[in-house]
Amino acid sequence: MTTYPPAEPGMRLEDVDTPALIIELAPFEANLARMAKDAKAAGMALRPHAKMHKCPAIGLKQMALGAVGMCCQKVSEAEAMVNGGVTDVLVSNQVVGAQKIARLASLATRARIGVCVDDLDNVDQLSVAAVAFGVELETLIEISLGRCGVEPGEPATALAKRIESAPGLRFGGLHVYHGGAQHIREKDGRCAAIAHATALARSAKEGIEAAGIAVPRVTGAGTGTYEFEAASGVYNELQCGSYAFMDADYGRNKDEGGTPYDRFEQSLFVYATVMSCPTPDRAVCDAGLKASSVDSGLPVVAGADLDAEYVGASDEHGAMRVGRRGASNRTLKLGDKIKLIPGHCDPTVNLYDWYVCVRDGRVEAVWPIAARGCMT
Amino acid sequence: MTTYPPAEPGMRLEDVDTPALIIELAPFEANLARMAKDAKAAGMALRPHAKMHKCPAIGLKQMALGAVGMCCQKVSEAEAMVNGGVTDVLVSNQVVGAQKIARLASLATRARIGVCVDDLDNVDQLSVAAVAFGVELETLIEISLGRCGVEPGEPATALAKRIESAPGLRFGGLHVYHGGAQHIREKDGRCAAIAHATALARSAKEGIEAAGIAVPRVTGAGTGTYEFEAASGVYNELQCGSYAFMDADYGRNKDEGGTPYDRFEQSLFVYATVMSCPTPDRAVCDAGLKASSVDSGLPVVAGADLDAEYVGASDEHGAMRVGRRGASNRTLKLGDKIKLIPGHCDPTVNLYDWYVCVRDGRVEAVWPIAARGCMT
Repeated sequence: MTTYPPAEPGMRLEDVDTPALIIELAPFEANLARMAKDAKAAGMALRPHAKMHKCPAIGLKQMALGAVGMCCQKVSEAEAMVNGGVTDVLVSNQVVGAQKIARLASLATRARIGVCVDDLDNVDQLSVAAVAFGVELETLIEISLGRCGVEPGEPATALAKRIESAPGLRFGGLHVYHGGAQHIREKDGRCAAIAHATALARSAKEGIEAAGIAVPRVTGAGTGTYEFEAASGVYNELQCGSYAFMDADYGRNKDEGGTPYDRFEQSLFVYATVMSCPTPDRAVCDAGLKASSVDSGLPVVAGADLDAEYVGASDEHGAMRVGRRGASNRTLKLGDKIKLIPGHCDPTVNLYDWYVCVRDGRVEAVWPIAARGCMT
Repeated sequence: MTTYPPAEPGMRLEDVDTPALIIELAPFEANLARMAKDAKAAGMALRPHAKMHKCPAIGLKQMALGAVGMCCQKVSEAEAMVNGGVTDVLVSNQVVGAQKIARLASLATRARIGVCVDDLDNVDQLSVAAVAFGVELETLIEISLGRCGVEPGEPATALAKRIESAPGLRFGGLHVYHGGAQHIREKDGRCAAIAHATALARSAKEGIEAAGIAVPRVTGAGTGTYEFEAASGVYNELQCGSYAFMDADYGRNKDEGGTPYDRFEQSLFVYATVMSCPTPDRAVCDAGLKASSVDSGLPVVAGADLDAEYVGASDEHGAMRVGRRGASNRTLKLGDKIKLIPGHCDPTVNLYDWYVCVRDGRVEAVWPIAARGCMT
């Protein structure tokens, strides 16, 4: 509910008050371009996930570079995207409950809307709502990789048949996203996990096709694995999201031969101020649990010249060890501003109302995180 | 940025869409009354921490029951409280940086404002701003318990002298909050930790008094330890916050003889919907990392009759194991709504824009979480 922007274009970065969520525009734009190029080169549709950035302004940039639309995880998130000008949204998730289903169908009067299912009754409920609103909902089947979804074979084929015969619904294909594969550190492990997902997708697709139903789309993939889905011969749409920003957890992934997974650069930072230097070897910054989500590890202090390590988060404090590398490195003093790399970008973004977009040390723009807090 | 309320007074709870943040008013009111009574009985001032609830409506209720004011952790949080009608706020934290210091002094033109320090230069900066705005800032010294703060003795006394001689500042006493003690499981351990904090507070107080400076206030304490600060003979103000809501982490604390620490009841819940039942022993709800902070453990499914355990959180999914206790318990079906007890109340509240306040199964009020996202 901070409705006024935290910075103004033209300000110097060091004058931005903290904590603030910073996008460095140069690496951000390079990331968008790289993924657009990779998807195009592989002949894959790109439908980036907006659950990560929650920002229509970013979605429109991704679409301007060739993305076919956005993924969202919640109806309210999709509403925020459509309100912001995005015309094609796949809710890559089940939508359960009369209120949400009605809102989804209502949204389809204004944009092309897809949704995922893993339950026969849910198909019927979506159909009733689609008919009531006079819309068509593209309906995809989620194939289980351990969370939601159904098994390939009879359960998936039964759902496809139900969708095919349901007024107001159009069978859109398969949603096969392997979240657990994204952060397997070794490339071979990620490759093997996606080989498993691909086998499930292929099996489900063949079963449905054997029932005489075409499977137009097989969608999935994340920033950690998209090259494998792209090469699978089964998937034809990529849902990657984190590539735009990256985070400390993705930074721990490895590429070929154990080299760093550095095809995308870190572009998202939590900007923080040193608020206490209680001892020579400790400093405290003003960014804690409410400024950077710690579910996938603590934030990491950016800047190789900075002799500081973030070692503990409480609600509004970040505890740091400083000066352990000796006098040759820069240590921190009261009032210094530092950049932190969040452990996990998605839930960190969800703590902020605005992005402060920076280029060459100056604020270039502020973008509202319009879907922040959109949970329903 | 969800500016419209998620429910309306009069609605049945089961018609509230999810995820939603629920306050059960009966236990909430009992908690407020219990702490007010305990503080009064001990002759302690009560200044509840608003970093937890971030809601002026709740602050005003606490003050109506006798609280002397509120604690806040951030200047923006204090601004939200003052805007909401709270007239007395202690920022129980260092305020560093010219912008924040100016905002703090500006706020003191509208309310009684206190602040904590642990640095001599910071005292001077606060003084300059207080003079510029023509206000008096009550300035307390934070005594170190391992995070921010200074040691008792010379460092604390030097700060007290600097405050005493600084125009625009009035020395307010000591802030001695032992965060690490709150969640020590055994009562004896919490008691010993607060005995240590009390010894530091006493030492700092005596040193400052020996320099001829009165120490009007010694403030600290949390929900897990307040009885020890109240009995210390040194503290005279309690800052407890979580007692109003409680959480799963506090629920693991023990009282006398290992009995549950149940003097306060759980009143805060994340309301969630079962959105997928992929196998007989698994269910998935719509409340994940963005609906309940997991820094202090996963949320816990409320309701002893419900044979379900929350076992994993991803961004927007909560994975549950169900039906393990056998057929005598109630298990979950698609669309069921459940209550979750958050692992940690403070950062969970910070994810939501509204409280949905419920009594006897009906929505009685919705309260804006006005300071949500107030980080600066």
